[in-house]
Amino acid sequence: MVFQSSTYGKVLVLDGVIQLTERDECAYQEMITHLPLCSIPNPKKVLVIGGGDGGVIREVARHSSVEKIDICEIDKMVVDVSKQYFPDVAVGYDDPRVTLHIGDGVAFLKEVPEGTYDAVIVDSSDPIGPAQELFEKPFFASVAKALCPGGVVCTQAESIWLHMDIIEDIVANCRQIFKGSVNYAWTTVPTYPSGMIGFMLCSTEGPPVDFKHPVNPIDENESQKSVRPLKFYNSEIHTAAFCLPSFAKRKISSKAN
Amino acid sequence: MVFQSSTYGKVLVLDGVIQLTERDECAYQEMITHLPLCSIPNPKKVLVIGGGDGGVIREVARHSSVEKIDICEIDKMVVDVSKQYFPDVAVGYDDPRVTLHIGDGVAFLKEVPEGTYDAVIVDSSDPIGPAQELFEKPFFASVAKALCPGGVVCTQAESIWLHMDIIEDIVANCRQIFKGSVNYAWTTVPTYPSGMIGFMLCSTEGPPVDFKHPVNPIDENESQKSVRPLKFYNSEIHTAAFCLPSFAKRKISSKAN
Repeated sequence: MVFQSSTYGKVLVLDGVIQLTERDECAYQEMITHLPLCSIPNPKKVLVIGGGDGGVIREVARHSSVEKIDICEIDKMVVDVSKQYFPDVAVGYDDPRVTLHIGDGVAFLKEVPEGTYDAVIVDSSDPIGPAQELFEKPFFASVAKALCPGGVVCTQAESIWLHMDIIEDIVANCRQIFKGSVNYAWTTVPTYPSGMIGFMLCSTEGPPVDFKHPVNPIDENESQKSVRPLKFYNSEIHTAAFCLPSFAKRKISSKAN
Repeated sequence: MVFQSSTYGKVLVLDGVIQLTERDECAYQEMITHLPLCSIPNPKKVLVIGGGDGGVIREVARHSSVEKIDICEIDKMVVDVSKQYFPDVAVGYDDPRVTLHIGDGVAFLKEVPEGTYDAVIVDSSDPIGPAQELFEKPFFASVAKALCPGGVVCTQAESIWLHMDIIEDIVANCRQIFKGSVNYAWTTVPTYPSGMIGFMLCSTEGPPVDFKHPVNPIDENESQKSVRPLKFYNSEIHTAAFCLPSFAKRKISSKAN
């Protein structure tokens, strides 16, 4: 469903859950993309699982080091609806580095040669329903395999206000699979449940990745002139995103580093 | 109105607007209190305007340096309802350092001798309606007068997602009145509009106050044993609270420092 809201502009809804609104999509898309890509020195090959609306690939395309952007979206209607109603989001598809694969991300990853990507971004819906597999250990293991040494993954990881039990499970799974670092970050997104969303940021064994201190800053001068300026992300909010309220820190810190 | 919600526990509503819920009140009360009090070395006298539910004074009472806590609440029913339905919030009234004044905060401040308080916390409702005066220059001027040199004020200051125009006005007013520093911070509060709330943090002329780097950290060991541990606030989230999304930074930074 697509509808026009009085305060947030046009809204995209899947299975009854708000996926994005024109007013606040910048927070989600910019953070889920630049948190991982600004944490490694020179991202070249990037895979996006989900993200059919095109917002994440729009953000990936800001990075001039990137040579290849694969996106695997299971639902072609999301792509079509986004192109029709959310041109400022679907604009991501205009970048010539993008290849769209319509299909199951889990199956797609199985065919990916080991060590292919510098970064994988998992822009999925919630872990209850069709996206459940994307929060489980076998999926994380395929992601780890598809990443080069010191490669990074960023996956949507729910709200600390509402889903602390799910988050603890995800953190535990990631700790077992990713031998680099495992971190939790969050951002404000008004139209998501509880007004925020979290991300798991993990790296594979290899050159160490210090997610909290971006080594590859992106700012307005660096991004392509044809692209709109960043609305939300900056290096300070990158670092701040890893600071957790005490109730969440107590539960996550013992498991993440 | 008080009602029981399925996810957030008991909820207090004034004039149709959610004031607090049992699940997330910790974020608001801890941040509006410890952001100012942890930014000055030795707070002794603290005034709370509004905050009749008792949550802010509960947090002020964690600071062992504090000798006197005045609270001026205009609506006695808020105090009574909180004591009846929100005992974990109203527990703030049990502290012997607290004096409750029922009355208008604007009038109360006019009678306060110059330089009385180390900190003033303005826990008001929104600037449209009865609390409007609390966001205007004459009120800020009375606050500044009531503060000692290098004293601090923290006032509820709306959401950057929804009320950027109001925030710009508040920042401009504060810049004229407070000759120390003027800063904007924010926190996640799921049940407030847009899932977040901001704060203005200002200091008077005198010993400089660097709000972004707390000089008076409070942690679980320091707080009284009879009080519950901090749920939300810690020194890292204190500093992180001053990091703004780019769209807000562009509008606020030119006016605040």
